[in-house]
Amino acid sequence: MLHSRYSDQVCSVARALEVVGERWSLLIVRDALQGVRRFEDFQRSLNIARNVLTARLEHLVAEGVLVRRPYGPTGRRHGYELTEKGRQLAVTMTALMNWGDRYYPAPGGPPRRVEHDACGGSVVAAMICSTDGQRLTGADLSILPGPGLPDRGPA
Amino acid sequence: MLHSRYSDQVCSVARALEVVGERWSLLIVRDALQGVRRFEDFQRSLNIARNVLTARLEHLVAEGVLVRRPYGPTGRRHGYELTEKGRQLAVTMTALMNWGDRYYPAPGGPPRRVEHDACGGSVVAAMICSTDGQRLTGADLSILPGPGLPDRGPA
Repeated sequence: MLHSRYSDQVCSVARALEVVGERWSLLIVRDALQGVRRFEDFQRSLNIARNVLTARLEHLVAEGVLVRRPYGPTGRRHGYELTEKGRQLAVTMTALMNWGDRYYPAPGGPPRRVEHDACGGSVVAAMICSTDGQRLTGADLSILPGPGLPDRGPA
Repeated sequence: MLHSRYSDQVCSVARALEVVGERWSLLIVRDALQGVRRFEDFQRSLNIARNVLTARLEHLVAEGVLVRRPYGPTGRRHGYELTEKGRQLAVTMTALMNWGDRYYPAPGGPPRRVEHDACGGSVVAAMICSTDGQRLTGADLSILPGPGLPDRGPA
């Protein structure tokens, strides 16, 4: 559904949303980043209908975000693990989590935190200039048409 | 709809998705970050039904992501501008755009680029440790329960 609705957008954000913009998909990635593997654990965490969860997991496997692997001592059960492509969504997840924590704070404090294993510091998503390495705010940058954008109006 | 479906999730990502996870909302924010202001320009860029666009814009205004302001020389027309809260979504947008450019490349190259105004360098979203300032990958960090998470299972 999302696919057909976003598909005439020539935009990396739109293409990314085709994959992770479906309801629940980013929360499945969130759980997988926390180490959830088994269908039952995703189901308990998300509390959604099993057929919806099955469809979302299959879609994420088809897109190469998750991989289905034998799980447990006998190898007769299967679990879902993030691929490198899926792990790269950690930046988007962290950015969205930071924004939610800032503007929609939970009463008891942040429900989850992202911690740097080496030093225990909290991890934030930020925008960095890949030329001079500076950390930037929205006021320091512009979004401009790139080489792949057809000429067809203001955006 | 999204609201009621995500609402039992104690999670900043879920709360953020309640606001920007609805179809088209993040693409409206993308356009606004590029300087689109007028209803007609959003409509032309997104090519969606006017009633859907109206509903999405009103929702983003109600959540304080956009503000509706007099526009143009006579001040009789209105446009939509990002608030500080809306501009903070630039990190999420950039992260999603980076991911889309990497894994779903457009034939002619990236459709849009984020440029550092001061030096022209390309801007990327990254994860930074707020204690030691290191730039991190997904392998350097863990997502852990925070103080606001009720104890109710593995995630």
